[in-house]
Amino acid sequence: MDNPKIKDQCTYLITSAGSPKMLYNKHFKALKEASNIKHFHVVPSLKLAKKVIKNGVDGIVATGHEGGGHQSYENTSTLVLLQQIRQEFPNIPMIACGGYATGEGLASALAMGAGAIAMGTRLIASKECEFHENYKNEVKNSTISDTKLVTCVFGPARVFKNSYAENATAVLTKEEKRAEETSMSVIRDGVIKLEKAYNGDVNNGIILLGQSCGLVEEIESVSDIITSIVRSAEKCLTSAYCMIS
Amino acid sequence: MDNPKIKDQCTYLITSAGSPKMLYNKHFKALKEASNIKHFHVVPSLKLAKKVIKNGVDGIVATGHEGGGHQSYENTSTLVLLQQIRQEFPNIPMIACGGYATGEGLASALAMGAGAIAMGTRLIASKECEFHENYKNEVKNSTISDTKLVTCVFGPARVFKNSYAENATAVLTKEEKRAEETSMSVIRDGVIKLEKAYNGDVNNGIILLGQSCGLVEEIESVSDIITSIVRSAEKCLTSAYCMIS
Repeated sequence: MDNPKIKDQCTYLITSAGSPKMLYNKHFKALKEASNIKHFHVVPSLKLAKKVIKNGVDGIVATGHEGGGHQSYENTSTLVLLQQIRQEFPNIPMIACGGYATGEGLASALAMGAGAIAMGTRLIASKECEFHENYKNEVKNSTISDTKLVTCVFGPARVFKNSYAENATAVLTKEEKRAEETSMSVIRDGVIKLEKAYNGDVNNGIILLGQSCGLVEEIESVSDIITSIVRSAEKCLTSAYCMIS
Repeated sequence: MDNPKIKDQCTYLITSAGSPKMLYNKHFKALKEASNIKHFHVVPSLKLAKKVIKNGVDGIVATGHEGGGHQSYENTSTLVLLQQIRQEFPNIPMIACGGYATGEGLASALAMGAGAIAMGTRLIASKECEFHENYKNEVKNSTISDTKLVTCVFGPARVFKNSYAENATAVLTKEEKRAEETSMSVIRDGVIKLEKAYNGDVNNGIILLGQSCGLVEEIESVSDIITSIVRSAEKCLTSAYCMIS
């Protein structure tokens, strides 16, 4: 927070996990009125999309089952989720997320009416990312079948198949998981394993990772990643448009 | 086979499950040389795609984890699989499959370089489909979370969550499943349950169903389904192209 221009530069505020309702207090309303900030909330299902749109978000980040990190219990793929949200909300500003790492992916998201994509796994494997080199190298070296859904700190999560994941329980139902969460030791244990990942212990840490890890072959600069994805998406959309015109 | 024009009218031959290598005998070669038949094989993974392309197929049907019916053990989503195949084979003719039921879906597939989509679930819910009305009604009435991966006759399959699915075992590993398949009673039992589905027993039959069932709200004629999907895809691709031009 050393940057005095943060209020001008911060144009998107993205929140995630659960409902953003608690955010809508008078301070947040004042901030929104005095700035151009757009508030997007991450949704893994149509059900949550309906709720947050009713609450007044400016847009949503729709994220599917193939993405890394925390997931819903519904397991809906990005492709199916995006179609479903578009059927119900044809005009809501939408960022597509979960499984994207190439220009083909960006082109497909724009073709479905998304205005952008969000990439986790692809950008972890960037020169600028502050994650541990061991973590970045796992993104680069892993294949498409190297991720697994496990029961993580706050519900199901897609992670790298390491020693931690092999010994983790499979995804429980929402009800079982909620009961378990009342136990602080489970949360403490999860946080320790997340710290291990941050410190480079790729065997015992919780390495959040999406299926798109199988698409990443190099650790590149953010600028190179974005430039090549955008260029390739432009080519894809031009070719597709030529097919129909 | 009452149609004498079958040789002229049949322009695509699609095979599925395992390798199509056994198809390449002298009779098939003669048929291909004497006709315009293009042979596509269904692949749920890059590994099988590599194998069948090496064997000489004309194209592939790439099908992801969200699709109905038999699945691979890799669980790769359609979005990730298509990007992966495009990275390795930028020019192979490709039909995208698994999760498609709308114009947005078709637009996204074309934007990724596919030449077409294949739809199972969406077309089961058509007036012309010869499946039982009970089966069609389940497609219409089910929601996006009404499917489940179970161990089916020949490996993992996505099916409707009915009594059969609730009692079916979760997906085994490939090795365990192969051992089980030597037992004829398992296969016989599976075939009986598939027959039940065909005869309209939607509780005890194996109702193969993709996640896209949650996108289908009407049983329509094939012509209406195709027309509306194509029109909407054209709109999507035009809008996306306008964003970049």
